[in-house]
Amino acid sequence: MGSLQALQDRFVRPTVFTLRLAISQGRLDDALAGIVSAVAQSGTKIQSMSLAEIDADQVMYDLALLSTDDRITRVKESCSGIDGVKVRCVLDMSFESHRGGACEMRSRRPIKSNTDLRIVYTPGVARVCKAIEADAALAREFTNVANKVAICTNGTAILGLGDIGALAGLPVMEGKSAIFWEFAGISAEPVLIDTKDADEFINVMEKLACGFGAIQVEDVAAPECFKITRELDRRLKIPVMHDDQHGTATVVLAGLYSYLRKSGRKMTDLSCVISGAGAAGTAIADVLMLAGIADVVVLDRRGAIHRGRVEGMSPEKQMLAERTNKANQKGGIAEIMKGKELFIGVSQADLVSKDMVRSMAKDPIVMALANPVGEISVQDAYEAGAALAADGRMVNNALAYPGMFRGALDANTDMITMEMLMAAAKALGDMAHGEALMPEMMDPAVHKAVADAVRGTAGKGTPLVQ
Amino acid sequence: MGSLQALQDRFVRPTVFTLRLAISQGRLDDALAGIVSAVAQSGTKIQSMSLAEIDADQVMYDLALLSTDDRITRVKESCSGIDGVKVRCVLDMSFESHRGGACEMRSRRPIKSNTDLRIVYTPGVARVCKAIEADAALAREFTNVANKVAICTNGTAILGLGDIGALAGLPVMEGKSAIFWEFAGISAEPVLIDTKDADEFINVMEKLACGFGAIQVEDVAAPECFKITRELDRRLKIPVMHDDQHGTATVVLAGLYSYLRKSGRKMTDLSCVISGAGAAGTAIADVLMLAGIADVVVLDRRGAIHRGRVEGMSPEKQMLAERTNKANQKGGIAEIMKGKELFIGVSQADLVSKDMVRSMAKDPIVMALANPVGEISVQDAYEAGAALAADGRMVNNALAYPGMFRGALDANTDMITMEMLMAAAKALGDMAHGEALMPEMMDPAVHKAVADAVRGTAGKGTPLVQ
Repeated sequence: MGSLQALQDRFVRPTVFTLRLAISQGRLDDALAGIVSAVAQSGTKIQSMSLAEIDADQVMYDLALLSTDDRITRVKESCSGIDGVKVRCVLDMSFESHRGGACEMRSRRPIKSNTDLRIVYTPGVARVCKAIEADAALAREFTNVANKVAICTNGTAILGLGDIGALAGLPVMEGKSAIFWEFAGISAEPVLIDTKDADEFINVMEKLACGFGAIQVEDVAAPECFKITRELDRRLKIPVMHDDQHGTATVVLAGLYSYLRKSGRKMTDLSCVISGAGAAGTAIADVLMLAGIADVVVLDRRGAIHRGRVEGMSPEKQMLAERTNKANQKGGIAEIMKGKELFIGVSQADLVSKDMVRSMAKDPIVMALANPVGEISVQDAYEAGAALAADGRMVNNALAYPGMFRGALDANTDMITMEMLMAAAKALGDMAHGEALMPEMMDPAVHKAVADAVRGTAGKGTPLVQ
Repeated sequence: MGSLQALQDRFVRPTVFTLRLAISQGRLDDALAGIVSAVAQSGTKIQSMSLAEIDADQVMYDLALLSTDDRITRVKESCSGIDGVKVRCVLDMSFESHRGGACEMRSRRPIKSNTDLRIVYTPGVARVCKAIEADAALAREFTNVANKVAICTNGTAILGLGDIGALAGLPVMEGKSAIFWEFAGISAEPVLIDTKDADEFINVMEKLACGFGAIQVEDVAAPECFKITRELDRRLKIPVMHDDQHGTATVVLAGLYSYLRKSGRKMTDLSCVISGAGAAGTAIADVLMLAGIADVVVLDRRGAIHRGRVEGMSPEKQMLAERTNKANQKGGIAEIMKGKELFIGVSQADLVSKDMVRSMAKDPIVMALANPVGEISVQDAYEAGAALAADGRMVNNALAYPGMFRGALDANTDMITMEMLMAAAKALGDMAHGEALMPEMMDPAVHKAVADAVRGTAGKGTPLVQ
């Protein structure tokens, strides 16, 4: 693998393809060996290989491959060149898993008779409506509202892709909905709101809120996301959380709890620098201070956010300057990192050098979470002496939000608090077994532990947004 | 059954209860006979009786009963008085069928591995988002949007219950969603919009529309429903239908087609009076005129809508006066019904007497559809000489809307037209076999025939709302 390929790989994260091959019976053994070798040479990993069909002349194999567009093209060409092998098709599984959508609204019970119809619809449904009219609390029992989350976005900050519009962001919302269902049994509906105006977004969501048990604001750009989350939380009697702020802060804190537990180090001994003063950076700063880190310095493109700074200061950054950066440090990232124990990056690729890590305190902790490429690679951070290095692949929000909403909905609480968020982080940190920094996403016990922790602390503490 | 009970029954439509009884083994045969007799004496119908459990001393039976609150109370008391019988519980199945909600958003595919997660969510989903950003039409293929209907309401005209608010109307929206799924495989989401202001409703729905393939306006009071449906249809490039207008008009026309086919009578020979100038009455008038009925007179509480009338005339009624009532008839329902072949009631209970039916032309057709009690009972209409009498139980919108939206979504059309509506009615009329006026709701072929008819006429004709 050349160094150009290595460079590309850092920016193009591999995804899953299915390659369907028809192989002549007479050439099977040699051909299979040739295929495996061709795949390996392209730098592609075989996830699985399975026999799909046999007929008189040939055998069909499906290969699930972890690859990139460039590489899969090379694999396809190489396989076509092998004697006795024909490439039937190449499927990009990201598209296949979203074909027809990732989620859908279904009936919870079959309608197989006119009796079924009489009770789910007229005339029987009128009895349920009248009962809820008389006592609105019954809606939690006789509608889906108490299990329903709005995943609302305007598409202005979709993943690392930026402002691609609400419709192009829909696959992310549907993917989240699928995760909500699979990990927490929550009915989560994508709500696309086609406006960039924060007030209009708030007004639309406020009118819709009576149909939901909770709201997840998702992939809305800063600074609008701050106002939207704050105002919805203030106006509505249901939990509101912005995943890019509070979900990210939860998993970062969880990773930190996990590491500290295993290393025996203490939160109160850490000083922290955060690169990125958007949704994630701001929420992480607040959570870490509440968790016991005495000093946090947050940087944006212009350097440290400090009291007295004038350029590029939004109201949110102004408030951040008031409550962070005790020593009122000024300067760029190289200066601010010096002597700090903890670096958290939620900004952009390749911002941090090995020397900067070396300038940190002894045994530094480096969480370089920028998407899709971190501020420094895990390998480089370790080479520069990091005691712990993590990237965005390890610290995944989907560990937190399904259980957090499950717990908040079950508690029938009107707000997600800082304490609920910290309890979720603690539960996640405790579930990380063995060498792993984070617990296993596929383990249902993980999401249940988060839900239990959140439900147990519901109603106590400080609002997420002030 | 006393005459007071008979009167009550007309206003309290029966629903389904489950009565669970524990019967002593030694008393079983006598007790069962006593139970069946007690149920019959109360005027309750047994839908089913099934053995639920047997133990050493007793047998548990579940009885599904078609009954009313009053009657089920009497049944319960009578059964408790039978030797060897204990009533364990009485369940109101309307509530049970809505417990936890009638519909929910689920993942379309399982997430069982980190590979599944990589393709439905990050990083794989970014590829799908980018593809849709580049070509918005791909959203039809790789999201659920092309199969998604918004069932939107503000709760101002829920069933026959009036303005009970959006949340209390949610069971109806969820019931419709369940029907959409079961009959047409459509992912239909209740959208509660908490405002009585038509412009605000329109603006909210317009911002949300990019996430849907079609819109069903539902149970919104007149006259706001007219403006809302008209404006949404005008502003949006997706089909918009108001079920109370266009769904009702479709099934009324279907019933008429069915009767005319069987009787050999002709649409063009009919003159028509419609009682009710709200959403349903207005739409029915337009559809019937387009279907070939030369003259239609529409009445509201103040009598016939005619040119020159001043009192109680909304802009919609003004327009109705221009295009209906050729002879510009004035007066109340008794006068207007004289000599007409067809009466359609979408107004209120007991407005029409037998004498009024007798004053109609020979072999009158009486569709008294007011909910839950018609303008005249089917029995009275037949006694007064009706050639056909029908009530709201026979003519059910759920015959029409699932297939209509299925056809419109599949055709990727931007509008539902009068011709699509009439094609749906024709298909329904043709599917009514034997004696039945309407086809069987549980027959999947019915909904498929409607969908095929609508898809086949998509893109042709006149807008539903002008």
